Amino acid sequence: MMITLTTDFGLDDPYVGVMKGVMLSIAPEAQLVDLSHAVPAQDVRTAAYVVYAAQPYFPKGTVHLAVIDPGVGTERLPIAIQTAQALFVGPDNGLFTYVMEDAAHWKATTLSNPEYHLAHVSKVFHGRDIFAPAAAHLSIGLDLDRLGDPVENPVRLPLPYLVPGRQELKGEVLHIDRFGNVVTSVGRLRWNGEDLILDPAFRADPAHEIRFASHTATVEIAGRTVHGIQPTYGTVEIGEMMALVGSTGFLELAVRQGSAARRLDVRPGAAVIVRT
Amino acid sequence: MMITLTTDFGLDDPYVGVMKGVMLSIAPEAQLVDLSHAVPAQDVRTAAYVVYAAQPYFPKGTVHLAVIDPGVGTERLPIAIQTAQALFVGPDNGLFTYVMEDAAHWKATTLSNPEYHLAHVSKVFHGRDIFAPAAAHLSIGLDLDRLGDPVENPVRLPLPYLVPGRQELKGEVLHIDRFGNVVTSVGRLRWNGEDLILDPAFRADPAHEIRFASHTATVEIAGRTVHGIQPTYGTVEIGEMMALVGSTGFLELAVRQGSAARRLDVRPGAAVIVRT
Amino acid sequence: MMITLTTDFGLDDPYVGVMKGVMLSIAPEAQLVDLSHAVPAQDVRTAAYVVYAAQPYFPKGTVHLAVIDPGVGTERLPIAIQTAQALFVGPDNGLFTYVMEDAAHWKATTLSNPEYHLAHVSKVFHGRDIFAPAAAHLSIGLDLDRLGDPVENPVRLPLPYLVPGRQELKGEVLHIDRFGNVVTSVGRLRWNGEDLILDPAFRADPAHEIRFASHTATVEIAGRTVHGIQPTYGTVEIGEMMALVGSTGFLELAVRQGSAARRLDVRPGAAVIVRT
Repeated sequence: MMITLTTDFGLDDPYVGVMKGVMLSIAPEAQLVDLSHAVPAQDVRTAAYVVYAAQPYFPKGTVHLAVIDPGVGTERLPIAIQTAQALFVGPDNGLFTYVMEDAAHWKATTLSNPEYHLAHVSKVFHGRDIFAPAAAHLSIGLDLDRLGDPVENPVRLPLPYLVPGRQELKGEVLHIDRFGNVVTSVGRLRWNGEDLILDPAFRADPAHEIRFASHTATVEIAGRTVHGIQPTYGTVEIGEMMALVGSTGFLELAVRQGSAARRLDVRPGAAVIVRT
Repeated sequence: MMITLTTDFGLDDPYVGVMKGVMLSIAPEAQLVDLSHAVPAQDVRTAAYVVYAAQPYFPKGTVHLAVIDPGVGTERLPIAIQTAQALFVGPDNGLFTYVMEDAAHWKATTLSNPEYHLAHVSKVFHGRDIFAPAAAHLSIGLDLDRLGDPVENPVRLPLPYLVPGRQELKGEVLHIDRFGNVVTSVGRLRWNGEDLILDPAFRADPAHEIRFASHTATVEIAGRTVHGIQPTYGTVEIGEMMALVGSTGFLELAVRQGSAARRLDVRPGAAVIVRT
Repeated sequence: MMITLTTDFGLDDPYVGVMKGVMLSIAPEAQLVDLSHAVPAQDVRTAAYVVYAAQPYFPKGTVHLAVIDPGVGTERLPIAIQTAQALFVGPDNGLFTYVMEDAAHWKATTLSNPEYHLAHVSKVFHGRDIFAPAAAHLSIGLDLDRLGDPVENPVRLPLPYLVPGRQELKGEVLHIDRFGNVVTSVGRLRWNGEDLILDPAFRADPAHEIRFASHTATVEIAGRTVHGIQPTYGTVEIGEMMALVGSTGFLELAVRQGSAARRLDVRPGAAVIVRT
């Protein structure tokens, strides 16, 4: 009965509101939650991260609708995916790469059954005409298989670059948030006393688990070296750069009460090396 | 039980949240959906388009609350309007022009009955003190007539300029969305194979229906000529200007992965001619 | 069953959506209302005003969650506060100063009981791991005392500067809204015919009540003098500066269809004098 929304539509125009009207016409009791409507235009990779990072915090069976859809009206398929945790609806362009990698099992289907489309399907707004109705029907218990035909190989983005080693972990910048915090692919990390344990995301081989000391680790990025991995923002001086474990378990660079992204002048894809 | 909100309040201040608090105090089960709170300050015409374009996608009986209210505290009336499809609440300044034109029948009333106001009515925020309570009461089934006295002639804006002809359709720019898509008054258009059928919006005379070929039509705007009307965004090259039928059935100018509004340097009111 | 949210997280990232997911996992029927997510980064004083100004318009028993939390992961306590009107959840950094001052009675508790935390508590996002769960549990009726231990003296900000006198009321700029309206600490004011009655906010001594004529009063701010206090925006010419009683009962400076803040070039804290 819960549906989240992630788009690049912004909130200035009524496009998001209209999708909600369509969903509530089908599922009047649905709880609708916005994840982000400020995904950069057509930035599938950012949206994939947003959905992946948020979905563990929603109840089992939540439907996640993501409409970043540069290919609307072309041959790209509309799809829905089911994992043990949640359901996902959107265009087949890689949006669900990370959640599929993270799931032990999943199945996918096209949204080809016109019974679950709006009566009139435009060629320019499948968010409203195809995706929103599918999400709403799933939220009230429609079986995934009813929506269309099985999809064996949904489109996938390359996984975030991460080479975990005993001495050195190599990764890349994954995401920059609105505070200017620089989220990297070095994760997921968890604290074990003063040590950190890396359980490489999307690489489900426990042999990869690596343990290292937070105090002696260094992080190299954009020609700078940051010493130590801090427990939280308040442990360095205002304006000081630090490395820490962010809220989703990935290594972050941050400046206390400032912007690490601006200080470092980095973008997604920039190289990061942790020496352990 | 559903209420939409359209304002020029933005979301930085708690004004919208406060209106929601008032509505949920009266109608605790209401589903509240934001259409837009980024209507340009006091731009009644844009808000009228937002409500008109969104309302067909909501369940019958939805209440649409619109507060663009430069005349708050002056003589302008607060009103509610009922059509076969929906209910509308806001100041009597033209906000509901398009939905009234579109409806076969409507009736309107003032919001003069103090029983449905907040206990204390300020002179500066009728959105909170008069409009939100009226919308909430309507959403739980209050009869329109209970709110006040009948209004025969609510204020109306001039209709969007549109001169439909066999050889030539003359219109104007109606709206520019946040992607820079230029929505014109040439609509509503629907596809019939490769032809388009114009059923002039707000001019309910079927004799006006005009059919023309999408391939050979040309669109003139801001000194440029665009050839053909495309089915969707993906049919031209990245960066190319195109004409297409937008998601609400009006002719749009768009640049694939770019901004047509910036390229054309047009504003609402600019002339558009389609040669059929 | 109603929970409001006030943060400095913005809506670009999914942080707010994630907190909602956590709350709806615990309280699936909760009505969630955003007050503002555009509080300037770490501006506790602005958030305190937002929550104080909005809370009277929500049903009794509403839970107000506020996460402006520069001290996350440090020694600052997480707290919840209960008044006769509402419940409040957030870090103990002064966020609830105004609502405590306004309430005849309140009690406060820490959020130290791990039973009401997420299973894994990070050091960087207590909004998700501690505050959101507490708010959700309170919204479904959990007793305040169950959350932790009593707090005798929550952190308080200095109250807004206000020296009420018979001839002269001295105050300061409290808040600037997105329209550029300048809200001052001179309040709360109510109309009594053409007179105004000041009932000094947070200073619950009826002896302080002062009555003065709106027509003859003058307001001095930033080297300017504004004559008279107007009932509403529409009573002066477009572009003209005016003083009026704003929607929350505080004296405001406004420019009709313009920005008083820009015209006056003032910031919170600037001095205001009303000569009565």
